[in-house]
Amino acid sequence: MQRAGRIQHAPEGFLDPVQIAEVQAGRRDFLRGAFMAAAGMAAGAARGQNAGDPAILELPEHSKALGQPVAARGYGLPSQFEKNLQRRESPGLTRVGGSSVSFTPLQGLFGIITPNGLHFERHHQGWWDIDPHRHRLMVMGMVREAKVYTMDDLMRLPAVSRMHFIECGANTGMEWGNVAVPTVQYTHGMLSCCEFTGVKLSTLLDDVGFDRKNGKFVLAEGADGSGLTRTVAIERALDDVMVAWAMNGEMLRPENGYPLRLVAPGIQGVSWVKWLRRIEVGDQPWATKDETLHYVDLMPDGMLRQYSSIQECKSVITTPSGGQTLLDKGFQNVTGIAWSGRGRIKRVDVSFDGGRNWRTARLESPVLPKCLTRFNIDWVWNGSPAILQSRAIDDTGYVQPKINQLRAVRGTRSIYHNNAIQSWRIGEAGDVSNVQAY
Amino acid sequence: MQRAGRIQHAPEGFLDPVQIAEVQAGRRDFLRGAFMAAAGMAAGAARGQNAGDPAILELPEHSKALGQPVAARGYGLPSQFEKNLQRRESPGLTRVGGSSVSFTPLQGLFGIITPNGLHFERHHQGWWDIDPHRHRLMVMGMVREAKVYTMDDLMRLPAVSRMHFIECGANTGMEWGNVAVPTVQYTHGMLSCCEFTGVKLSTLLDDVGFDRKNGKFVLAEGADGSGLTRTVAIERALDDVMVAWAMNGEMLRPENGYPLRLVAPGIQGVSWVKWLRRIEVGDQPWATKDETLHYVDLMPDGMLRQYSSIQECKSVITTPSGGQTLLDKGFQNVTGIAWSGRGRIKRVDVSFDGGRNWRTARLESPVLPKCLTRFNIDWVWNGSPAILQSRAIDDTGYVQPKINQLRAVRGTRSIYHNNAIQSWRIGEAGDVSNVQAY
Repeated sequence: MQRAGRIQHAPEGFLDPVQIAEVQAGRRDFLRGAFMAAAGMAAGAARGQNAGDPAILELPEHSKALGQPVAARGYGLPSQFEKNLQRRESPGLTRVGGSSVSFTPLQGLFGIITPNGLHFERHHQGWWDIDPHRHRLMVMGMVREAKVYTMDDLMRLPAVSRMHFIECGANTGMEWGNVAVPTVQYTHGMLSCCEFTGVKLSTLLDDVGFDRKNGKFVLAEGADGSGLTRTVAIERALDDVMVAWAMNGEMLRPENGYPLRLVAPGIQGVSWVKWLRRIEVGDQPWATKDETLHYVDLMPDGMLRQYSSIQECKSVITTPSGGQTLLDKGFQNVTGIAWSGRGRIKRVDVSFDGGRNWRTARLESPVLPKCLTRFNIDWVWNGSPAILQSRAIDDTGYVQPKINQLRAVRGTRSIYHNNAIQSWRIGEAGDVSNVQAY
Repeated sequence: MQRAGRIQHAPEGFLDPVQIAEVQAGRRDFLRGAFMAAAGMAAGAARGQNAGDPAILELPEHSKALGQPVAARGYGLPSQFEKNLQRRESPGLTRVGGSSVSFTPLQGLFGIITPNGLHFERHHQGWWDIDPHRHRLMVMGMVREAKVYTMDDLMRLPAVSRMHFIECGANTGMEWGNVAVPTVQYTHGMLSCCEFTGVKLSTLLDDVGFDRKNGKFVLAEGADGSGLTRTVAIERALDDVMVAWAMNGEMLRPENGYPLRLVAPGIQGVSWVKWLRRIEVGDQPWATKDETLHYVDLMPDGMLRQYSSIQECKSVITTPSGGQTLLDKGFQNVTGIAWSGRGRIKRVDVSFDGGRNWRTARLESPVLPKCLTRFNIDWVWNGSPAILQSRAIDDTGYVQPKINQLRAVRGTRSIYHNNAIQSWRIGEAGDVSNVQAY
């Protein structure tokens, strides 16, 4: 079972027409048979009704026999029936697996928490499982006393826990150039959301006595082979940036920076430096290769927009989404996620006619700053083609733009920071595809 | 690395004195060496200082070579260095693994979300991995029209997502009788917290047209071999009870009821019926074996207290906790969790002298109803023995009681619903143990 009400989702995100016909036919047959089985299961409690029919007294094996024991010790895994819900590398997107992306399967997720096993991956020189007893963090530069912290040193400091989304600046990047990537896993799947635990960067900066007068920027550097380095403005560093060791209740995963990463809420993922080994305080931006050659926006006039790192307000419908199939007309729960790098989501509107009419969706709680917000809205599908869109508004009043509004300002040669409204087309056969004309 | 600032936590939750001495000695040596290594790592960026010393230019392999590629497809797992953080069955607690408990390792967790792989297990007749395409839910009894739902039927209905704790009614049960279980994994580890997604039970009851005048109770029945059945009062069923298919963003785990379970916020875990196959509406409690023989409280006068299912306000310090060792005097971040089956946590106080003096801890956000709340508080350990306690207060004004206050009313022969204040003793050597005299 990949996902959701009346929707079938094949391993690679697509069902061919034969498969769809089989599912539809099979489902109807199956429903009939299943009703008999369920009636049988309930027969005892239902005070013997139909008890004369031996067929309906047949209970499934799992209702009669002893099941599997609890784990004497262990770490649990998903059901065998969920094995197609995986993070996936986009075929052909990059040449080297160590400098590539593996996307989160948003089409099969619920709520706002991303399970750690499905958190997206993006590395510049591959990942390592670093021994936390040997890992160190140095805080230096314009400080009274440079310090080197062990993990134990960090974990005895005052801790904070906060839920935040993390989105790669290149998420939805293919869409700048009219490439309609087929599924939401590949259009929006460089996006995850976790509860992070760590120490506030401001606590560390206080501990080393940083230069409050002249210290204007902070550099964060990773311990991987790429030595990834990113500049963070001091105002942000002192606000909600964390040096984190835990995600969703447990220590970070190796692919996500174990044992230590920067958490820079609202800022593109590349600044959330993994395997964090060094923080330096300085008086100007470092202009490293990862912020001058990469992660810059190529504007229509040929100039590069730099340090454009805030992830602006954005949303996407995850069910139904590209590659899924509605098997029936009638009532559907339409659901998706919204987020803003500037604060809380205030409202999400949904259109079923390509943006002509909008209705306001229900937001699930909690609605937290710089965190995913889950929305749901009722829809009755009449069987005709339809264009589904969601439009998020954050608490600064910013409204998620249409793709053509973005292109009018920023052209079509960007890779990064595409936060446009996503359009999914429902065909008469219930097929869902990515369309860009709206 | 099991857990946390200046605390070492061995595989089974204990360190012997030799191990502690080794860790303490090793740590000091190691710190010295590590400072040199970290200085080396930073040497390039630090503008060549000490570059003449070849020893400090030695970088670890992970800073020089290409690491592991992203997953072409897959589901990630924790670091190899975290493999001792597992759920564990209590040795000798039960005779049959299919009717046993595997506890959540609270001593190594952070924030409020429990990773699905570490969610506690409690089965009555073992667990099964049920094919969701064959699973059905029947809603029947005092209704206008009984219905059988497929998973697809349920997942197209209006969905809700909510964060809630789940606690077994028998959690901390050994402590009624002066048994000081050694670690927080075994004292409090039948406790987890997830973001659940599903349909409200009230939506289903509306869909079948339940008898609003005479329908006073709801029965929930599981599809496992034990046919577990629990009664829920209609007021609660119509309030916040859910029929859920997802936990922490993904489909339920088989051990936690895949593909469908009841979520009964604030109520003991046994009522959160797993592998849910049937809901029946009736006009009186069912008084099934699981609510008359089991999950009842034996009072001092020999009477049984039934349907005492609300999990009252409770808290526990998870770090430092039993089996851990403080390796140093000085500043420590003390952290734990608090929860109430009646609403939100209003305040948590912490005592470092066995309850004579109390200070108020910081609560991490979000603070949600019937959900874990994480607290942190600063402490400077002077090296003398100390008794650590936490005391939670919920938004009804209820104050978590001392164990002797509970025993005065309910005696010592209960198994269930022990929500007393937990005491951890810090010894002069930094050892932490469970003590009950306070």
